[in-house]
Amino acid sequence: MSVVTLEKCREDIRKQLDNVVDFWLKYSLDRVHGGFFTCIGKDGKIYDELKYVWLQGRQVWMYCRLYRTMDRFHKPEILEAATVGGAFLRKFARVSSSSGQWKCAFCLTRDGKALKVQRTIFSECFYIMAMDELSRLTGDKDMQLEAEQMMEQLIYWVQVDPSGLGRPQLPGEVPINSLSVPMMLMCLVQQLTEGRGQEVAQKYKELGNWCVEQILQHIQRAGTAILENVSVDGSELPGCQGRLQNPGHALEAGWFLMLYGAQSGDKEIHRTAIRNFVELPYQYGWDKEHGGLFYFLDVDGHCPTQLEWSMKLWWPHCEALIAFLMAYSHTRKPELLEIFSEVYQYTFSHFPDAENGEWFGYLTQEGKVALDFKGGPFKGFFHVPRCLYMCERILDDLLENKD
Amino acid sequence: MSVVTLEKCREDIRKQLDNVVDFWLKYSLDRVHGGFFTCIGKDGKIYDELKYVWLQGRQVWMYCRLYRTMDRFHKPEILEAATVGGAFLRKFARVSSSSGQWKCAFCLTRDGKALKVQRTIFSECFYIMAMDELSRLTGDKDMQLEAEQMMEQLIYWVQVDPSGLGRPQLPGEVPINSLSVPMMLMCLVQQLTEGRGQEVAQKYKELGNWCVEQILQHIQRAGTAILENVSVDGSELPGCQGRLQNPGHALEAGWFLMLYGAQSGDKEIHRTAIRNFVELPYQYGWDKEHGGLFYFLDVDGHCPTQLEWSMKLWWPHCEALIAFLMAYSHTRKPELLEIFSEVYQYTFSHFPDAENGEWFGYLTQEGKVALDFKGGPFKGFFHVPRCLYMCERILDDLLENKD
Repeated sequence: MSVVTLEKCREDIRKQLDNVVDFWLKYSLDRVHGGFFTCIGKDGKIYDELKYVWLQGRQVWMYCRLYRTMDRFHKPEILEAATVGGAFLRKFARVSSSSGQWKCAFCLTRDGKALKVQRTIFSECFYIMAMDELSRLTGDKDMQLEAEQMMEQLIYWVQVDPSGLGRPQLPGEVPINSLSVPMMLMCLVQQLTEGRGQEVAQKYKELGNWCVEQILQHIQRAGTAILENVSVDGSELPGCQGRLQNPGHALEAGWFLMLYGAQSGDKEIHRTAIRNFVELPYQYGWDKEHGGLFYFLDVDGHCPTQLEWSMKLWWPHCEALIAFLMAYSHTRKPELLEIFSEVYQYTFSHFPDAENGEWFGYLTQEGKVALDFKGGPFKGFFHVPRCLYMCERILDDLLENKD
Repeated sequence: MSVVTLEKCREDIRKQLDNVVDFWLKYSLDRVHGGFFTCIGKDGKIYDELKYVWLQGRQVWMYCRLYRTMDRFHKPEILEAATVGGAFLRKFARVSSSSGQWKCAFCLTRDGKALKVQRTIFSECFYIMAMDELSRLTGDKDMQLEAEQMMEQLIYWVQVDPSGLGRPQLPGEVPINSLSVPMMLMCLVQQLTEGRGQEVAQKYKELGNWCVEQILQHIQRAGTAILENVSVDGSELPGCQGRLQNPGHALEAGWFLMLYGAQSGDKEIHRTAIRNFVELPYQYGWDKEHGGLFYFLDVDGHCPTQLEWSMKLWWPHCEALIAFLMAYSHTRKPELLEIFSEVYQYTFSHFPDAENGEWFGYLTQEGKVALDFKGGPFKGFFHVPRCLYMCERILDDLLENKD
């Protein structure tokens, strides 16, 4: 890719980001009950009014981040959407759990009544992300404190005692290290500490190191594979669960680790991030026949049991774009830019909807649109804009310092 | 279809049934720990040792049924498999629930330790089916009693108080009538009462009527749609959940209802079964472009949010074959045989694996094999052999009384 191509690429990314922000501003905000509709059809029509907490939190976070860090999004309507979404989340997301700890719901009715609670930590993760980022806009110290308190609870559930999550302990169950958990906690450490000075950084330093250690345990088979689930002492688990690979997750962990390596000055971690969490998942995760990243794979080549294993989802492609562009910008190795370019071409020719705006999320293995909505229970205003936002910023830096 | 074609069809079905029974006898039984492996690759290799309770129960039931009612399967190895599977199930499937009631696990380790418990009734349903059918072979009165006790508990959970299932009551939750529940209970009523005389029939009569009433509530939109989830008073629910259609489930409910109508002499129910639960789901569920039945649809034509909505799964086709052949055999209407023939041709040209035996379970919308295993967490020794068994018996009757 030449400088000219990179400039063209930045222009396309910028246009896409504008388009995607407009789409969600236009259709998503619920001015009656607050919060966001996220079940949005291909042409913007709301096809379900349920409010998924993951997506509420992510959307608040994304609006705040855009408002706070990109001039052209420092607009009242974005601040309004972030505030309305944040108020809804803060008012309704937390439900009492039987143990007296605060659990967040997974799904709410349009007017905020809890409908489903998951026995995992992810609703809480996105709640924290939203509250921390929103408190940076509003200067609301209570909100920031609340985010940190929820974080303490998360750490307790993950590191000390998970019983507050509500899962019964069963005799056949073995505790596992699932990549998503240390990855999300690491993302939160980066969120909570960003620009907050030495004291806060120090507070979360140990947790950050623990996350890195837990993430690195997923490098298996003499460094030739990233496995999604390993035992808590870092060995391979039996069966489908142990052999599962999720290239998109590995790539996402890759750029989190790269940021950690760059910030802490740990060059070995940085090299490992690129080699094992960026290049490697692309090598085994890319479909050589039809292009695109598989959703799930089995490291021994068995057929995964997930019905959607061979589908091409938008978000692994978003993570791959960030990971390869960041890896290139940190190293300037042309082969990393080559792969970025390949992923970019696949992504931009398959996912964006030129007719109605925003991106499709779910393609068949062959690249045909399989589900045509723009938002659903798991697709909201997050992976696409975060990817475009991150890539635009990395490209800004790259093109400013072109050499 | 002429008599000659029907005879050819019966021959193919019989061959397939022999092939499928052989496949599972060869690969599935665990002679070390008891029970069945069900994660079986395309060539018979075990790729995961977990034991799913739904599938353990269904496999015991199917072996017993074959042994008990079809001469050529009245063989010691089938009795052995049924007994070994039944003993494993009885020893390990039940776990204590916090409320002191018996819950069955959803998934066990190879040696029978509970790994996962679902907060639904289905593990218990298949436990009851297995125990009732096995008690018919062995004459074990305790086992029969146990099945009936578990059934009492199920009825209590469904009709009186679901809290024993372990779901917390949430303020946004509305109780729903999901088609699978009355359908499964009706199947159990038919199982428990079959050939057991007036007293047992009387005991479950009221429940049977209740199931019929609950199933009929799913006829919506002036009789033009079967919806998978309705409110408990039989009205339509909002959003995706309310608009969901599952043609395979409707067809399965169809032949359960047809049996009920035939046995009780209720001609109106019988007509409704064929019109609304057999013909109708085929009309909206059949893919006019590529053939085959969709897995999920949205009654208003929105895209379903289930990633696998457009895939062609083996089991809806199994249910459709039984439903249309039974409907034809009860009515002799040629148009029903025409549709049976269409479904039969699609099914037999797409699902059976001529190379390694048994059937593939999961095809893309276009009919390509998407997951190539023969057994998995939800595909065991059940829908395929039950379909072949039912169709062979219906064809035997038809061809005996050809007119």
